[in-house]
Amino acid sequence: MTLDDYIADHFDRFTAELAELCAIPSVSAERSALGEAAAWVAARLERLGANVEVLPTADGGPPVVMAGLGPADAARTLLVYNHYDVQPVDPVDEWSSPPFEATVRDGRLYGRGTYDDKGNLTNRIHALEAWSATRGALPVRIVFLIEGEEEVGSPHLPGFCEAHGDRWRGADGCLWEAGGRDSERRYVLYCGVKGLAGFELRARGGATDAHSANATLLPNAAWRLVWALAALKGPDEEILIDGLMDHVAAPTEVELRALETIPFDDVALRDAYGLDTLLLGLEGADALRRHLYAPTCTINGVHGGYAGPDLKTVLPARASAKLDFRLVPNLTPALVEDLLRRHLDRRGFGDVEVARLWGEHPARGDVDSGVARAAIAAARAVAGSEPVVWPHMPATGPMHSVCAQFGVPAVGFGVGHAESGAHAPNESIRLDDYADGLRLTVKFLEVFASA
Amino acid sequence: MTLDDYIADHFDRFTAELAELCAIPSVSAERSALGEAAAWVAARLERLGANVEVLPTADGGPPVVMAGLGPADAARTLLVYNHYDVQPVDPVDEWSSPPFEATVRDGRLYGRGTYDDKGNLTNRIHALEAWSATRGALPVRIVFLIEGEEEVGSPHLPGFCEAHGDRWRGADGCLWEAGGRDSERRYVLYCGVKGLAGFELRARGGATDAHSANATLLPNAAWRLVWALAALKGPDEEILIDGLMDHVAAPTEVELRALETIPFDDVALRDAYGLDTLLLGLEGADALRRHLYAPTCTINGVHGGYAGPDLKTVLPARASAKLDFRLVPNLTPALVEDLLRRHLDRRGFGDVEVARLWGEHPARGDVDSGVARAAIAAARAVAGSEPVVWPHMPATGPMHSVCAQFGVPAVGFGVGHAESGAHAPNESIRLDDYADGLRLTVKFLEVFASA
Repeated sequence: MTLDDYIADHFDRFTAELAELCAIPSVSAERSALGEAAAWVAARLERLGANVEVLPTADGGPPVVMAGLGPADAARTLLVYNHYDVQPVDPVDEWSSPPFEATVRDGRLYGRGTYDDKGNLTNRIHALEAWSATRGALPVRIVFLIEGEEEVGSPHLPGFCEAHGDRWRGADGCLWEAGGRDSERRYVLYCGVKGLAGFELRARGGATDAHSANATLLPNAAWRLVWALAALKGPDEEILIDGLMDHVAAPTEVELRALETIPFDDVALRDAYGLDTLLLGLEGADALRRHLYAPTCTINGVHGGYAGPDLKTVLPARASAKLDFRLVPNLTPALVEDLLRRHLDRRGFGDVEVARLWGEHPARGDVDSGVARAAIAAARAVAGSEPVVWPHMPATGPMHSVCAQFGVPAVGFGVGHAESGAHAPNESIRLDDYADGLRLTVKFLEVFASA
Repeated sequence: MTLDDYIADHFDRFTAELAELCAIPSVSAERSALGEAAAWVAARLERLGANVEVLPTADGGPPVVMAGLGPADAARTLLVYNHYDVQPVDPVDEWSSPPFEATVRDGRLYGRGTYDDKGNLTNRIHALEAWSATRGALPVRIVFLIEGEEEVGSPHLPGFCEAHGDRWRGADGCLWEAGGRDSERRYVLYCGVKGLAGFELRARGGATDAHSANATLLPNAAWRLVWALAALKGPDEEILIDGLMDHVAAPTEVELRALETIPFDDVALRDAYGLDTLLLGLEGADALRRHLYAPTCTINGVHGGYAGPDLKTVLPARASAKLDFRLVPNLTPALVEDLLRRHLDRRGFGDVEVARLWGEHPARGDVDSGVARAAIAAARAVAGSEPVVWPHMPATGPMHSVCAQFGVPAVGFGVGHAESGAHAPNESIRLDDYADGLRLTVKFLEVFASA
């Protein structure tokens, strides 16, 4: 039986299985149904013939599903990283069909997780099933690592990887969680991620709020916070934290060449946000280079004092801001925290508390690795067009913990499309892309095994 | 009958009448029961024998009660300014008795408005009644002006004063709304007020919030706001708005001498807010001078972006801050608005909107005016100690609109005490102070009429 025949015969069951997994409301931010989703995944992998373990994480975090399959003596080992948790569904009113009831409309399957990341996960399981059914033994050894809190920054995953990393140390490559096709149906691949350091800055004034007539003599937490923040980044978008930019690694020649192949649509981004220009007036290649190779320092929220209508003549005693830094090599969360704390202290803001909220290392991608070259070849074969290869994503994931620290190169591809709407209402995949994803994964395994 | 006998005979009715007025929940911020309170005041003044008018304000604002009494041919005219509105009662759980049921405990009358400003208002009415009953005709012509939105910045009062000011133009003095005694039972008088200019600064980023991975290329409203704010005042507390400090009038020799008589307790203020030092390390006379003669630029509240737990990697599209400036002579709300707008424009913050919320001129006090000297003499006589005379309050009121623009000097005294808690839960007056307030007002009228 050919692969295409197998896909055609079993496609309805494949999408039904994906819908079954999507019906489990495993929202990690709400800690709901995570054990149920892990159990579903474990059972499905057992039916695939894998040796499955559901392993706990520290402090009662959601379990990690690990599964091994394929010949123990295969020449190559592929790590496959996915997650069974999803984003919250708010604003729920904007969904055209119930978010946890995957629904087909106009050739698409709508529902939370159909793309991110349940659709990518089941697609890989179904591709392995299809390989076994049509070709026999798998050509590589596979190690699945499927976690349950990617959407909240994978707080327990670094500890898990430290404890269990020997199970995949030395793997020849990692198939990362997600990916998709752009508006011209090209596959979009990526080989690395930015890191993320998240903090809360907390400023204090007097013991309680005061009448603002006392502003002559009493400190104001909102002012302390504003001044501390203004010491971190200036209106020219330069990060001012002493020494931070000195740690930023310049892109390599290979990375810069890879950038030239990326059809980055700066005009579409600009228009989507109703702007006359992007930041600093950047366009085209300059915008893309900054997008990938500049670290960021972002105020996610700033709050203190009166928030009602009109005016309240109050002097706030407390104010705080949440900040995230997107990290490029060679910045790390610990380094940024240390530089931030010292920078504030040196400028007289020792009173402003810095609390750590999130920390993920960046993972430098290698577009020339075996696993990346296999993905590029497979994407070219299935789509009939050259894929777009990002050295790394502007976004973040636990690629350092899972792959980079063990020397495992990674590549991400998946079943998304230009309007998949990960994290948004009406998340969807195209059914055609799901079928092509099976072909893509099979082709990828074939190339990866033989390279 | 002596004044003291009259007070003793009628005191229970006086406090009962005050309690009746306090039972009307005339909270201007909530626009509740304002007409009812105005009607109560008008009826009570009619019983006193005054010619009373309840006059509308523009745009359906609360009415102003105007009342005239005393001989038309009196040598002197006294304007009396009070207000019948009160502050909200939140946090209501912290009241020991219902805020709108005035309750006697331990020689005090507790309830919203017992001091600010219903107690001061009825005290003046009762003092005039006592004068008439014990001495006959009033020694001066009295013009009452009693408004209903002092606690929300008297937005309709300037227009009202422009329309009706001829009724009191040329008055010899104004008895301002409030005042009281300090912890050593000295009367505290004041002759002027700071002004207030209130604004909202509104910053924008893109059309909608964005994923913070786009912080490389998309503007962030929270950063725009922080930078605009940091351009207004620095960590050394210097107001940086171009030209603003050039307009600040230095205190006169007379004013500085008056300051020397004020027992300003900087240590108590510092300790009340749990601080090691006041702002800039100021103490004693230096702290007092800054408190009265420095303008302020205060963030009352700053809000934008994510406010929940943990981190949300979002780039806020909107952020805003409320600001108040306490104004000393010769700053005005319009001048500050103009300087603020130009300052922001000049520094590249033309995108940050400035919306006007509040505007009251400062009113420079005259501690040597006839009305002030009469109040000082009366306070000395009733308390048996030298009063504390503030050239002006660090706080604000519509004294410019009501008095200063018509050349009418003012002085404020009243029935408060060191723990009256205006605007706070468990607002109260001491019943002894209410009785002394009657003696004080009678004595004041006697001195003012004959000076």
